[in-house]
Amino acid sequence: MKIITISREFGSGGREIGKRIAQKLGYDYYDSEIIASVAQKSGLDPHYVESTLDNHGWQDFAISFGGTIHSVEYLQASKIELLVQQRKVIEGIAALGKDCVIIGRNADVILKDYNPFNIFVCADRDAKLKRCRERAREEEHLTDRELLRKMKEIDKARARTRDFLSGTEWGQREAYHLVINSSDWDIKILSDAVADFAERWFNSRT
Amino acid sequence: MKIITISREFGSGGREIGKRIAQKLGYDYYDSEIIASVAQKSGLDPHYVESTLDNHGWQDFAISFGGTIHSVEYLQASKIELLVQQRKVIEGIAALGKDCVIIGRNADVILKDYNPFNIFVCADRDAKLKRCRERAREEEHLTDRELLRKMKEIDKARARTRDFLSGTEWGQREAYHLVINSSDWDIKILSDAVADFAERWFNSRT
Repeated sequence: MKIITISREFGSGGREIGKRIAQKLGYDYYDSEIIASVAQKSGLDPHYVESTLDNHGWQDFAISFGGTIHSVEYLQASKIELLVQQRKVIEGIAALGKDCVIIGRNADVILKDYNPFNIFVCADRDAKLKRCRERAREEEHLTDRELLRKMKEIDKARARTRDFLSGTEWGQREAYHLVINSSDWDIKILSDAVADFAERWFNSRT
Repeated sequence: MKIITISREFGSGGREIGKRIAQKLGYDYYDSEIIASVAQKSGLDPHYVESTLDNHGWQDFAISFGGTIHSVEYLQASKIELLVQQRKVIEGIAALGKDCVIIGRNADVILKDYNPFNIFVCADRDAKLKRCRERAREEEHLTDRELLRKMKEIDKARARTRDFLSGTEWGQREAYHLVINSSDWDIKILSDAVADFAERWFNSRT
């Protein structure tokens, strides 16, 4: 079984690259399907599940210690429960035994015993802004500055969740087989190139 | 003209990958040739030039400021002169107008107006140790711990020189088109895959 995982900066096009790779290689594709399954199993609204898992769930509070005020971050209990549920869904996907592409959700860490091919997609700031503008209607009313802040917050939440789950650093180069900067590419050509790259890796291991 | 630059962690196999890519694509290959040329132009011993440019040249000294001792890092004047000379040699290579692969030496920064395809090669700690053991006779007498310290020092010197030249962070993912972890690969298959990846990028831009 061949599993490709895609981690990505918000706005880098990682999701589209993953979808195209799955199409080209004839693999199953998992993205919002995971959220839907977590929502179904927990009896919660999918929008709530998505928002809690992807963007929020971290809270700060101040404690006084040794005469100084410290800010402490903690995870909402509800998010921890959803992360456990999500892990089970992802393990369930792998247990199906079919080749697949999984977007985000730390699948590279959760499924490491399956030896997935792990990709991280990044992009330059301007390329990400442009992509967000073209894609997301809900972002239309945001200024560049607000959009950049949103991108930064989402990436920060992803990094925190990864650290929480695995103690490893999000986006750290050694953790992935391939880190690509999508800024300078036509996304179709890039997706094809990455799919071929991943196939060579799988073939070299069989 | 197509230029591929390879930055790399010490022991990651970046040099061999670069050589194989150049062979496969029929490009010129520049590595120690650059040192030889700098040495010739400056009338200095190639070993001194290599050691100063690659590994050393940074010195610390302590200054007292505001009642506290600070450690300050500075670059030897001799290293700055060699870096200027090296920049000229690298610009001279590009001015030849021939497709080429250039190993290290911040060629990606120096030649950025030529739109090179920039690769960074990293590897896991154990893979780098293994590779160093297999390759370098001079390292044979070092313990793992000493070898790791050496690897770390060389990478640190590379990072400092890059920061000094360009104000950018060495190994930061956005600065490269492709970051690859060589640990899990047969180096020949990886080199072929990277060469094809780079060719697609060049072809998509013409």
